[in-house]
Amino acid sequence: MRSIIKTVIVATGLIASQVASALPRNEPVSPITPPEEIHIGKAELGKKLFFDPRLSKSGFISCNSCHNLSMGGSDNLKTSIGHNWQQGPINSPTVLNSSLSIAQFWDGRASDLQEQAGGPIANPGEMASNHVLAIDVLQSIPQYVREFNQVFGVTEITIEHVTDAIAEFERTLVTPNSPFDQWLMGDDSAISDYELAGYRLFVESGCVACHNGSALGGTSFQKMGLLEPYQTENPVEGRIAVTGKDADRFMFKVPTLRNVELTYPYFHDGEAQTLTEAVDIMGRLQLGRKFTDDENAKIVAFLLTLTGDQPSFDLPTLPPSNADTPVPQPFDD
Amino acid sequence: MRSIIKTVIVATGLIASQVASALPRNEPVSPITPPEEIHIGKAELGKKLFFDPRLSKSGFISCNSCHNLSMGGSDNLKTSIGHNWQQGPINSPTVLNSSLSIAQFWDGRASDLQEQAGGPIANPGEMASNHVLAIDVLQSIPQYVREFNQVFGVTEITIEHVTDAIAEFERTLVTPNSPFDQWLMGDDSAISDYELAGYRLFVESGCVACHNGSALGGTSFQKMGLLEPYQTENPVEGRIAVTGKDADRFMFKVPTLRNVELTYPYFHDGEAQTLTEAVDIMGRLQLGRKFTDDENAKIVAFLLTLTGDQPSFDLPTLPPSNADTPVPQPFDD
Repeated sequence: MRSIIKTVIVATGLIASQVASALPRNEPVSPITPPEEIHIGKAELGKKLFFDPRLSKSGFISCNSCHNLSMGGSDNLKTSIGHNWQQGPINSPTVLNSSLSIAQFWDGRASDLQEQAGGPIANPGEMASNHVLAIDVLQSIPQYVREFNQVFGVTEITIEHVTDAIAEFERTLVTPNSPFDQWLMGDDSAISDYELAGYRLFVESGCVACHNGSALGGTSFQKMGLLEPYQTENPVEGRIAVTGKDADRFMFKVPTLRNVELTYPYFHDGEAQTLTEAVDIMGRLQLGRKFTDDENAKIVAFLLTLTGDQPSFDLPTLPPSNADTPVPQPFDD
Repeated sequence: MRSIIKTVIVATGLIASQVASALPRNEPVSPITPPEEIHIGKAELGKKLFFDPRLSKSGFISCNSCHNLSMGGSDNLKTSIGHNWQQGPINSPTVLNSSLSIAQFWDGRASDLQEQAGGPIANPGEMASNHVLAIDVLQSIPQYVREFNQVFGVTEITIEHVTDAIAEFERTLVTPNSPFDQWLMGDDSAISDYELAGYRLFVESGCVACHNGSALGGTSFQKMGLLEPYQTENPVEGRIAVTGKDADRFMFKVPTLRNVELTYPYFHDGEAQTLTEAVDIMGRLQLGRKFTDDENAKIVAFLLTLTGDQPSFDLPTLPPSNADTPVPQPFDD
């Protein structure tokens, strides 16, 4: 419980400074606000599940494998590694501040975090388990059964309980107090003039048309390659996979820019390794604008002010398996 | 620093109870004692390195992948998963209390934790990097360079600094305060009569001849299959690989029984899934004794009293890569 309480204290600190200073500046970007009404027991249970590789067939891959909370909530790979070292089709989006998005996955095929959480567990290319097996594993472990009972008042665990708990934990993974947020809350000294110039350029050149709101992204789907086609060998076509509409080809959810310093490489295919490269490509393809080296550097300097307080909690200790627990099958394919 | 300080406080608590009660009982098993003279900065740096998958070629596998501190310092798989999903030859031994062993690895081929730590990084079947590449990665990251400078007073990182820091962190990973240790320190109520009967049987039947000392193991090499050959399809032959002596065929370092509840499956090949099975096999092969179901259950009950305080610290936040950092290569084989 302590670690969640710590998160709440951080959040309270944010509220206090909000009260003490002026209201947030009137900008198209707003500060991260703390999550409201977190169910502490559910989030603590969800944290264990997030770190538990027994939700995968191999017993080796957990949510944290590809959304590593030591590394900005991502895996820092172009595309992810799944069961049996399969190469994933797409770049792992950060789980940090993901609760602020209108939908989940790059193509928005899950409406919320709970719906998202069930996907990778049963995806043959990711954790390669299935919901029946995952529940069998959890139901065999008395400590989990007791904790689900405490949180949900049930003796039979369902996948909905599992994904509800994981989603509740993920709602705690917001990153307040970035230098830019401190500036937004009225602290003129929180960012440099150079970084501020980068922000002004980010707004005036039109980046903010898509990267807006408290997450600087996650508020809309947009076409990758708007004014000029995006060249990639990655076959993923975005939101058309969900809607079937031709107009949604190459439409992707706009990624958050929060903690973008930590969530490299960039784009849905992970092909941009640096922010300099990503800013250049975005300027040309989405805005029809070739940023000068100085403009690019200013925008990158601004982007680096978006790194907030990273999640801070004790590494969870997982309850052990026993003779009734299905044994992981890493090598039987 | 806070998390290490927490460890020290736990250790101090142990010393206090030691002073307050009688001396430890005179038994062939002794309580876990806290590590002495930990270099806090070095251990904190080592913790980051322990969790950093960039020490692997893929950027996906860290020390913690196979010595998972959420799961008793092991991966709970028969044999481990390495780079490109290669099946490892041997069961991953727990890192918990590994500082108490006479040598490292099942065959003792590393004399200490520092020597051990360099092995998996460069093993093509494990992390599949090499020491030059691993250093290039770390040297490219200013936050790491600064931290190595603070700890070691150098500007050029070497593999010896890396393994020294990891080993220092690993020396903090002791697990005091198990119920059995509380009993050893004089608390008669810490374990039940049934568990105590299991311990007495463990001593009288001869288990303790090998599983002794504060780690209940790690003090000697012994032949697996002493009175009766051990049947396994695993080709590993143990200490002969180090000494070349025929007498060392099937000689393995006796594993610690500390936290054995958490470090399943058992034996160097991971073929015993439960403690019941492991105790039965050990009794027959090493002691020439067929434990009755009741005897077996009593010994297992005792073994479950060996679970101590698990490592407790904040999940580390890793410094990000940058344009100068070599990019992980998960899929180029």
